[in-house]
Amino acid sequence: MPSNRIELPRGFRWAAVKAGIKASGRSDLAIAVADRLAAAAVMFTSNQVVAAPIVVGRRNMAAGAGRVQAVIVNAGNANCATGPAGIAAAEQTCAEAARLFQCAPEEVFPSSTGIIGVPLPVERLVRALPAAAERLGNNHAAAEAFALAIMTTDTKMKTAQASMDAAESSVRIFGCCKGAGMIGPQLGPPHATMLVYLFTDLQIEPAALRGLLRPVVEASFTSISVDGDTSTNDTVLLLASGASGVRWDALPRSFQDEFCVELQRVCDTLAHAIIDDGEGVTHVVTLEVTGAPDNAAAKRVAKSIAHSPLCKTAWSSADPNWGRILAAAGYAGVPFDVAEVTVSIGGVLVFERGARATDYDEAAVHERMKQRTYTIAVDLGAGQGRCRFLTCDLTVEYVHINADYST
Amino acid sequence: MPSNRIELPRGFRWAAVKAGIKASGRSDLAIAVADRLAAAAVMFTSNQVVAAPIVVGRRNMAAGAGRVQAVIVNAGNANCATGPAGIAAAEQTCAEAARLFQCAPEEVFPSSTGIIGVPLPVERLVRALPAAAERLGNNHAAAEAFALAIMTTDTKMKTAQASMDAAESSVRIFGCCKGAGMIGPQLGPPHATMLVYLFTDLQIEPAALRGLLRPVVEASFTSISVDGDTSTNDTVLLLASGASGVRWDALPRSFQDEFCVELQRVCDTLAHAIIDDGEGVTHVVTLEVTGAPDNAAAKRVAKSIAHSPLCKTAWSSADPNWGRILAAAGYAGVPFDVAEVTVSIGGVLVFERGARATDYDEAAVHERMKQRTYTIAVDLGAGQGRCRFLTCDLTVEYVHINADYST
Repeated sequence: MPSNRIELPRGFRWAAVKAGIKASGRSDLAIAVADRLAAAAVMFTSNQVVAAPIVVGRRNMAAGAGRVQAVIVNAGNANCATGPAGIAAAEQTCAEAARLFQCAPEEVFPSSTGIIGVPLPVERLVRALPAAAERLGNNHAAAEAFALAIMTTDTKMKTAQASMDAAESSVRIFGCCKGAGMIGPQLGPPHATMLVYLFTDLQIEPAALRGLLRPVVEASFTSISVDGDTSTNDTVLLLASGASGVRWDALPRSFQDEFCVELQRVCDTLAHAIIDDGEGVTHVVTLEVTGAPDNAAAKRVAKSIAHSPLCKTAWSSADPNWGRILAAAGYAGVPFDVAEVTVSIGGVLVFERGARATDYDEAAVHERMKQRTYTIAVDLGAGQGRCRFLTCDLTVEYVHINADYST
Repeated sequence: MPSNRIELPRGFRWAAVKAGIKASGRSDLAIAVADRLAAAAVMFTSNQVVAAPIVVGRRNMAAGAGRVQAVIVNAGNANCATGPAGIAAAEQTCAEAARLFQCAPEEVFPSSTGIIGVPLPVERLVRALPAAAERLGNNHAAAEAFALAIMTTDTKMKTAQASMDAAESSVRIFGCCKGAGMIGPQLGPPHATMLVYLFTDLQIEPAALRGLLRPVVEASFTSISVDGDTSTNDTVLLLASGASGVRWDALPRSFQDEFCVELQRVCDTLAHAIIDDGEGVTHVVTLEVTGAPDNAAAKRVAKSIAHSPLCKTAWSSADPNWGRILAAAGYAGVPFDVAEVTVSIGGVLVFERGARATDYDEAAVHERMKQRTYTIAVDLGAGQGRCRFLTCDLTVEYVHINADYST
């Protein structure tokens, strides 16, 4: 991570403190504050059950016309399924932050992650806010403190950066995220317990920012899964401070394209980091589904394979049991003719013309599958639809982590 | 299992031998032969990828007008994704059995279960057929030999029986099945690697028999899952020999209803046995979903919970982490208002009015969840739709079993 080489976007400050919400006693309150109101674009979980900060965050984004002054994140408690008291806790958080940072409550963006169904000890959060405010800084130590404090079962901090030269200035991007379990994001307009925070100093209006975010998120955070469990708290927030002085509207198309490419790269890096740090993960598998009737069908097939316990357990032991991949593709509800299907693992062809490849070499496939990262390519021979989807194996360690979560 | 008290249906004989297909060396070729052509009703997997015996079985059922003389089942090899050679192997099996049992090849019903993608050693199967024919018998030892030989990762034989008095005779039902992993049946008209064989000596036409089978299967075998992986080989076959002399058409409605109740009971018993013997299972969980917009929506919610790795791992340790149940219901794609939802576990209310029940007692719930079998009731408060769905926990043992399958 080149965090000591690329400069951070201007116009933001970050901080984190220990509010006493995580049982571990680690830092659990992260705040990000914009020097002036920042343009914001957000995508929330499409789960029918959403946490209180999602309810309040949606309302604030609407009321604040897509402008955000401060982001307040607590880890260790999801503030979900906590009823009216949970809503009140999220509102109180916004009100206290608004007072501290001299903005309107609807200009505060709240987030929570952790266990579901336990009342949020909001008084601890509020009590710790002033100390967090005192530590605010526009430097890597502060940004990384933010990235560390939002972690729950994550074992690694996840950040990514980019910088582009533009006219007489430069535009910078800093992104960070958390997530290791309950990862199967399905984000809709205004979607975690994947939390993603993206900061840039580009000068851009909220509507244009929303237009940029959606395709980037579709190709990154909504094309990954650890366990396929879509969280009640998933959130991707992109803030633009404008402090670079570089105006999106005034930029040549080539630079606009470069910005999108860099934003995509930052998001791809973060999405990969989530899977690589997935609970109990020992293998990161890229599924390349092609030849589907359309792109949506390709994604259904990819998800069917990505969420198959039989595929995932076979991957954990580098077992070339490709019949399970074929079976999972077959129950995705997508029509295809098995005689037209080809499957390859780590570049080795294993299935074609309705049967095992004629020169199938199980030992060679087993060797490829011992790599931590490899690709499984499935061509359905049924159209032009395609999808790249990032997932992982299911291990004994995953079961241990999740069988001991709250007890 | 009252196998020594209830008589077997007349008009069938069963046998099993060791053909050398299972690596374990156990009996792996099971045959059932009707004294005269039996009426048949069948449901096959709805997977797009189906095994060769499914292709041939479908064709035979159509050509043979729903009449079956002999059922030939091998375990240890699924004969799936085996190309034209696999089809030829299934056809050769039917041809050899037809010669032996003096019927047409399309009156033979072939089934296979085991690993996908490995050529079936059909010559071993064919060589063992005469020895199996010699052992045929209408007795519990023979029927149970059949039930044992079809097993793969199963640890227990699964059989169920029923008998009803009717007029001057009686009608009997014998059922057996196999299945422990790759269990997420979605059966369509003419569906396994769940294999279910049901035998009755009722006298009934194939069309009427098909009408009986479908609702019974919907409430039993398509309302269960171990891992949600829908197999390429799932099959439910119901044969009626007519040897009781009791004609369906001539029966009073009350007896017809009793027959359906008994058939349902036999199927429910077998379906429960599959989950109870599911790979690595330590808890059998009944999901009672009510208050859904319609029955199909209730089933989507049930399946979403049943297939959630986070729910399943929590159940394995009797962890009352009910937030995961709520989250899984929330991403099923069914609209509801979380404030209207109630959730109870083992009869203890845990969630209502959008938050934890006021007298929530975690220790009490934990105690209930230590039972091997209990019920989770979810009422969505959004309609009259309902579903009962049987599933199980996800344990370290499941991962071990499936990470070591073919290597």
